[in-house]
Amino acid sequence: MQRRTVFFVSDGTGITAQMLGHSLLTQFEGVEFDQVTLPFVDSPEKAEECLARIEAEAAGAHTQPVVFSTLVNQDLRAIVRKARALFLDFFETFIDPLEAGLGVKSSHTIGRSHSAMDKKEYHQRIEAINFAMAHDDGASHRELAQADVILIGVSRSGKTPTSLYLALQFGVKAANYPLIPEDFQREKLPEALRLHKPKLFGLTIAPERLHEIRKERRPDSRYAALDNCRYEVEEAETLMRREGIHSINSTTKSIEEIATTILRALRIHRQIY
Amino acid sequence: MQRRTVFFVSDGTGITAQMLGHSLLTQFEGVEFDQVTLPFVDSPEKAEECLARIEAEAAGAHTQPVVFSTLVNQDLRAIVRKARALFLDFFETFIDPLEAGLGVKSSHTIGRSHSAMDKKEYHQRIEAINFAMAHDDGASHRELAQADVILIGVSRSGKTPTSLYLALQFGVKAANYPLIPEDFQREKLPEALRLHKPKLFGLTIAPERLHEIRKERRPDSRYAALDNCRYEVEEAETLMRREGIHSINSTTKSIEEIATTILRALRIHRQIY
Repeated sequence: MQRRTVFFVSDGTGITAQMLGHSLLTQFEGVEFDQVTLPFVDSPEKAEECLARIEAEAAGAHTQPVVFSTLVNQDLRAIVRKARALFLDFFETFIDPLEAGLGVKSSHTIGRSHSAMDKKEYHQRIEAINFAMAHDDGASHRELAQADVILIGVSRSGKTPTSLYLALQFGVKAANYPLIPEDFQREKLPEALRLHKPKLFGLTIAPERLHEIRKERRPDSRYAALDNCRYEVEEAETLMRREGIHSINSTTKSIEEIATTILRALRIHRQIY
Repeated sequence: MQRRTVFFVSDGTGITAQMLGHSLLTQFEGVEFDQVTLPFVDSPEKAEECLARIEAEAAGAHTQPVVFSTLVNQDLRAIVRKARALFLDFFETFIDPLEAGLGVKSSHTIGRSHSAMDKKEYHQRIEAINFAMAHDDGASHRELAQADVILIGVSRSGKTPTSLYLALQFGVKAANYPLIPEDFQREKLPEALRLHKPKLFGLTIAPERLHEIRKERRPDSRYAALDNCRYEVEEAETLMRREGIHSINSTTKSIEEIATTILRALRIHRQIY
């Protein structure tokens, strides 16, 4: 197995470089990558430190390191580029064709993304997080009218992580509401939810997977028993079908995939970028 | 003001394309961008739909649309590329130099990033989210030994969003603990925290900003009064200094910037990619 050290270099957090870099690296199965993020490289001194770090790695390793960069400033880029590494530039590569295509010069300003400069976006994000926290697990029926989406599903079907992700990544207000055996016996949606039917979205999950997840939290409980998981999932799916509620099976989906599917299904626009 | 429609096209969620695309677009101040994400383009039929959508925009608009793509499959890329648009390919551009540099062929497999295929990573992420929820706002002292970081700070200094982001983005277990007037009078850290001092990290904030935030939640309260905010922030900062606790001022920082700074300061390795 080949090993490689990969550096994500950025004048900001490095999160964008990590995401694109990581999605490229997953395409190379025969290689094991040691990933190092060097964020906030926003001065010549820090660029020199960064260069020294990469050079030390290049000197010690048998293989050439890989550098993914989103450095905006060309003077800083020029310093880091001196490293004996495979340098892949996520910024410079696209800024020229964009300038040509748009007919506008770029500002080459550091730290524009993920900076808290846009106060309105920042506010919407924090509001969405507060909303998700206040409306987790059916904690409150108040202000459900303000929700962009209300997730429903049995306990441990993935509602909380999805709600939080919708808030943090997209600034979308998500409440979530557990479906419990009482709801199935009543054979109808809880009153508080019926008023907001167009905003409902269901999460379902394979009973076997639910059993595994619940077993870890409460081993040997009726709650975690496979036959009970089967019963709850079947009842929840029947209820969603009967009420015509969009749903997704979360079993093999990532939080990102579930959240993106919900935005599309309910035609919700993200509030932040 | 020039207007442009921008498409983020992906066989996955499109989140990576959005992040890099958005950080490039923020460099063009004189242009207003309408941003459209076309996710899950993973079949020739969907690629044709996507092409039709972009072509319709190109026909109706005065300006050429911009397409940011992370499509992995070259046949699907070839379909979407036919559009009369400025096509910027975040995948193809880097996969060739990576193949050459690594001396390995890529697998060209769709949907490897953000897919829930890595069960261990998925599990660590969910564990971290559960941990953050269970240890929000000092809710529990149990299992603090399992925390990677314990955030402290006055109410509304940004602890909850930071804890959740650390969990969701990095799989890092973060507890958070409010500093309250009783802590200042005692002139020492709460007992439960003293045991875990190397894991503590402080968030502080400008009193004027804190006043604004608290005022929105509880107008005309003592809690939100500017002089009380000044008092609490000063006491919290004094306590952090005295105890030698790393801290960051969150006033003009994004959640991403705060979270990245914490990982570096405490040398915490992210658990997921």
